[in-house]
This record gives sequence, structure tokens and C-alpha cells, in this order.
Amino acid sequence: MRFVKGHGTENDFVLLPDGADGLDAETVRTLCDRRRGIGADGVLAVVRVAAPTEADPRWFMDYRNADGGVAEMCGNGIRVFARYLVDSGLEEPGDLLVGTRAGVKTVTVPAAGDITVGMGRAERLPDAKVQLGERWWAASGWSMGNPHLVVADPDLDIDTADLSVTPAVDPPAAYPDGVNVELVDATAAAATKASIRMRVHERGVGETRSCGTGACAAAVAVMAARGERASYGVDVPGGRLTVTWRDDGEVLLSGPAVLTYRGEYPNDTPR
Amino acid sequence: MRFVKGHGTENDFVLLPDGADGLDAETVRTLCDRRRGIGADGVLAVVRVAAPTEADPRWFMDYRNADGGVAEMCGNGIRVFARYLVDSGLEEPGDLLVGTRAGVKTVTVPAAGDITVGMGRAERLPDAKVQLGERWWAASGWSMGNPHLVVADPDLDIDTADLSVTPAVDPPAAYPDGVNVELVDATAAAATKASIRMRVHERGVGETRSCGTGACAAAVAVMAARGERASYGVDVPGGRLTVTWRDDGEVLLSGPAVLTYRGEYPNDTPR
Repeated sequence: MRFVKGHGTENDFVLLPDGADGLDAETVRTLCDRRRGIGADGVLAVVRVAAPTEADPRWFMDYRNADGGVAEMCGNGIRVFARYLVDSGLEEPGDLLVGTRAGVKTVTVPAAGDITVGMGRAERLPDAKVQLGERWWAASGWSMGNPHLVVADPDLDIDTADLSVTPAVDPPAAYPDGVNVELVDATAAAATKASIRMRVHERGVGETRSCGTGACAAAVAVMAARGERASYGVDVPGGRLTVTWRDDGEVLLSGPAVLTYRGEYPNDTPR
Repeated sequence: MRFVKGHGTENDFVLLPDGADGLDAETVRTLCDRRRGIGADGVLAVVRVAAPTEADPRWFMDYRNADGGVAEMCGNGIRVFARYLVDSGLEEPGDLLVGTRAGVKTVTVPAAGDITVGMGRAERLPDAKVQLGERWWAASGWSMGNPHLVVADPDLDIDTADLSVTPAVDPPAAYPDGVNVELVDATAAAATKASIRMRVHERGVGETRSCGTGACAAAVAVMAARGERASYGVDVPGGRLTVTWRDDGEVLLSGPAVLTYRGEYPNDTPR
């Protein structure tokens, strides 16, 4: 099968231009294996819809996690998906509609540069405490379709905080299915009001280089505490994202998408 | 540039069929980056020698580590290199001579299956003690061109031993430039005399899935302690290798080589 490899803020994907036919969980796990396969955080299969409608637009992003399971949406992956559609000539630059398991998303794709995705509305979830090392920190709960707890305490040194283990949550019953935890340094933004820094522990995965919904939750939490709607830069270990919280409640996520290389898997032809 | 990705017992490589021209350290680091590049432990450039001689045979393996530095030899990489030469039709199955920075190596490549490399002679190095967690263990020193300390104590549970930090060595002056450390379970082999299990901490890298010279050192250390020359299976986390210590002192390393996929980097052409 032919594939294209790409990443958004170092969240990386194997994109399959020819769809998801025959794509079982074992194949996904093999493709995503970083030594025995191609290596990625997930697989993006490009599915062309036979009879597009408003509720079922021309392209469907069939996203699978590296563990082989289907997943609803990926804010970094959909930018790679959209960059492929435009760079390959399948779509013109501009606004695209992309179907996902979390509904239809609007993606704005310039000819080059950052891509913007409408991520839906942020919703409040219960606040809770999060344990990092020996100490407990207050965290605000937000949903971007998935749950997040955001710690934005100026006393927390996010660079030295230990995210090697899943942070404990108190009360545990607040998030029985687990929760993503974002550690935010908003001290620079307190002066510039333009950017925050973030590290993230993704539920079931561990610390990652980037998390699109996590960046949205972190920026929204800081904006909400300040009583504003604005655009914030969010620096994650894998690069820079931009989160815009519109007056109508919609959250927009902007960031880079890089198509790294293309290939044929497996290596069945002599070179 | 076109490339082929491959691995030997999960020690993985980007193979460059068109040689090493213009291959600087920064390019190697980018190619080996597992998210922003292709991802590998190292790069194998296929260099065709213009005027081959016995001392400088037709093929030279220009091996670079993921950090961009040149390296002398790689017992897992040279199998991938040789598998490529045969599968691509550049050489017939059989014995090949391959030049490396550690001299000319003889590689035996069947049409399919395990590939065998002459790794040179094992030489004794000073014995020392190695620290794992709180406890110190006696280790025997062996050189396979690079230095190794092999712990083969039946009291050591190699599955639970901590290799997350570089093991301390006593006396430190015995290995001032560092040393590879192999933890060996030879208890099964005590019954079958046919196989050992091994984990390895590679100098400057950390624990890895496989180490060709480490497998040789580990098997030789156990054979030497038993006063025999034989063939041992060596099970490493990434698969199974076979080490043969010949009566003439030469150590042969056999193992799999898989060409996983092929590609073009960067992704400069629409698909």
C-alpha cells in the first residue's frame, strides 16, 4: 500500500491515500510500530464519500490510534489530512468540510502555512485536584469532546514537574474514565496576554509532544479565568499552536502540518 | 532522496541506495528523528567502490549513528545492508565482502532467511563490578572491537533488573570511556546448552532492543566460562540472534534482516 507520513507539532501519522478497506487493528498496530513498521501515533485513512451530502461531505477522515482502535477526532491529525488533500491536488486551498466520527469539521487550508480547524465549543467540567510528585494542585475541568484538567498555578514549575506517571485526581469519582492533564505556564502571557506554555499528559498514553484538544482546553481555561475571548499562542514541546475562542463560543485551533515523506509498504519491489 | 527502511532484531536503519554524497550530520539527525523525519537508530549509505580491490571491495557500508556521527560497524546494520544488495539484484546470494570503517567483513546471504557476518575475534578485557539498583555484580570484560561487561550470575533476575540508568562500574578507571553492559540469563542454557537470554545497556544510548556485538560478547563470555566453543541462540528483546565461536577464534553473528518499506524523502511530489 502507498502512504504519506506527516506530523503536526510532532504528533505524527501514517496517511493512507487509498482508504481504509481491509484496515484491521493488527495492520494499524504494525504500521504504527516505530521499529518493525513505519512508526506513528496514529493512522489517517482518506475515505472518499460516494454520494456527498451536507451531513456527509466529500471526505471522511477514518482515524485510528496506534493501539489499533478507532478514535473520534484528532486536532493535529486533521490538519495533516487537509494538507494532503490540497497538496495532492484533490482540493483547492480554502475552506474544506471533513467528516469525522465526531461530526463534520470545517478546515481552513491556505496554499502554504498554518491550517485552522473548528474544534467545537468548550464546555465546563468539574474542577478537581491533581497530584504531581508529592504535591496537589487545583485544576479547572474543561471538555473539548474529551475531558481535561488544567493546572495554571504560577507557583508550578512546569518544566520540572513529573509527568512520567499518570497524575492522581481528587476526588477520583470526578473523572472515573480518566482525564487529560495540562500543565500551563501563563506567567509570560500575564505580561503579553499573547501566549502560554503547556505540557500535557494524555489519558491512556502518557506525556506527548502535543495534544490539540489539550491546547484548546489550556488556552480556554486561562482566558476564562481572565474573563476574555482572544487568540493565544500555545507552545507545546513539539511546536507552536494558536487557539482562538470566538464570541460565539467556537474554539479554533491553528497550527502547522508537514508532509514528511511518502512510501510503499511493505517493501515488495526491488529498488 | 530515495530510501529503504529495514531492521535486524528491531535495531532499525534508513538505507540510502544512492550513497552518502552530501550526507552531513544534520541530515542524518533529521532522517533518524522518529517524528519529524523517517526514524531510525542509524543510517546505512550504500557506497559503490569505483575500483574494487581485496582491501577495498565493491561495496562500502557508510554507517552513521542517529546522533549524526560516523560509526565503525554495526552487526545488525550490516545484515540489512547485505539483504538490500541481494534483494535489489545488485548481488547474487552467497558470500559477500563488505567494506566498513572496522575493516572488510564477510557476509553470508542466503536467498531468504538469516544472514551471517564474521565479526572478528573476541578479546579479553579486565573484569569489573557493575551496579544494578543497590547491588554490585561481578562481570567479565570482553572486546568485540568495542568494550563489554557481561553479568551472568544465576542469582540475577534479568527481567526485573533496572537498566534505566547507566550502570556504575568498579573500578571506574577500568573503563574510562564507558562500556556496554550485558545481563545474561544462562540458566536455561545450563540444561540445553543451546541458548541464553540477554538485555543490554549500550554505552551512550541506554537500553536497546538488540546489540550485535553485545550478543557476541555475552555468548562468548558464557562459552568461555564453560570452556567450550559452540553455537548459542541469544534471545534479545527484539528477537533471536545466533552466535558461533569457531575454533580459530572468529565469532560469527547470525540473525534476521527485514526490509520494511521504501520511500522518497522529502515528500516533494504530489500523490
